[in-house]
Amino acid sequence: MTEREILRQHIDKTVQLNDEQFDYFFSFFKPISFKKKQMIIRQGDLVEQEYFVLNGCLKTYFTNNEQKMHILQFATKTWWASDYNALHNQGPATVNLDCVSDADTLCLSNEDREKVCKEIHEVETFFRWRSNKGYIGLQKRIMSLLNNDARSRYEELMQQYPELYNLVPKHLIAAYLGVSRETLSRLYQAK
Amino acid sequence: MTEREILRQHIDKTVQLNDEQFDYFFSFFKPISFKKKQMIIRQGDLVEQEYFVLNGCLKTYFTNNEQKMHILQFATKTWWASDYNALHNQGPATVNLDCVSDADTLCLSNEDREKVCKEIHEVETFFRWRSNKGYIGLQKRIMSLLNNDARSRYEELMQQYPELYNLVPKHLIAAYLGVSRETLSRLYQAK
Repeated sequence: MTEREILRQHIDKTVQLNDEQFDYFFSFFKPISFKKKQMIIRQGDLVEQEYFVLNGCLKTYFTNNEQKMHILQFATKTWWASDYNALHNQGPATVNLDCVSDADTLCLSNEDREKVCKEIHEVETFFRWRSNKGYIGLQKRIMSLLNNDARSRYEELMQQYPELYNLVPKHLIAAYLGVSRETLSRLYQAK
Repeated sequence: MTEREILRQHIDKTVQLNDEQFDYFFSFFKPISFKKKQMIIRQGDLVEQEYFVLNGCLKTYFTNNEQKMHILQFATKTWWASDYNALHNQGPATVNLDCVSDADTLCLSNEDREKVCKEIHEVETFFRWRSNKGYIGLQKRIMSLLNNDARSRYEELMQQYPELYNLVPKHLIAAYLGVSRETLSRLYQAK
């Protein structure tokens, strides 16, 4: 599939755009490829765009004062990634975004997204539903963090996103789950 | 302020509706008052509406297999509350919604929200921004759960929502933070 087709299929799941509308929307996306470990957004940066992942895997994360890394999100094919806090509030980035593997993305600027949302009502509908879906995903993660032990959180993650098993090194899975590598190894062995 | 004025002021912060548009939108809201401890949504229920809080305080929460309660959100004046997972996926409620205190709300059905979003583009913009804001709030909570100890989480909560200090009993604050009542008491004393 071409990058155009991947995006179109993704949008079609939520709203119907005619060819003219879709082509206009698509004209604002810029293809950008990244190398494994390449930084896309760094804490403190000004954030002006978001990324639609065509292939590969990105991660958003922050490091605390003791240099411990916490992973907020992995983004694989047809996921969106950015620092939405910074985008929304037009402040500096509070998280980092980098590449778990080589990745191809389509990049959309904040300004262009707002412009097209204003011009094409259906595009605004799409972004509202995407945001709702993101909200629900985060709520599930909070429920899981509050209620589940490491084993359940691991099993839940692998059930929801089986593709991560091959794409993401184990120490990053541990940083996402909030457990040590040793704990994660025990969970793998027990599998 | 009348309930109409409270909602109008809340919407005005995000989008501009003219009087006719606002009155049309407002006509879909139904005032509903609840008593302290009254259940609004119960896990397993069909969820068809959401609630805009005029005064008082609601909470969304779930209870695990050991009957331990975890609180996802407190909703005070000008907050919205429902089970958004159930609303979005049209499935049964995965959380409970009840009243921390007596509360007055304006209730909007899923069907009416979608209807007005379609008819008035600005209303869709409003709900997109509300959803973005909710997403960012949940992301902050995940960062806090992953990174902060009980004391920092408590201080963060009180800084963000100082009104909770008087509105919400301490054992509910403890259930939100994911700490025991005893731990919370120590945090209060150390204040």
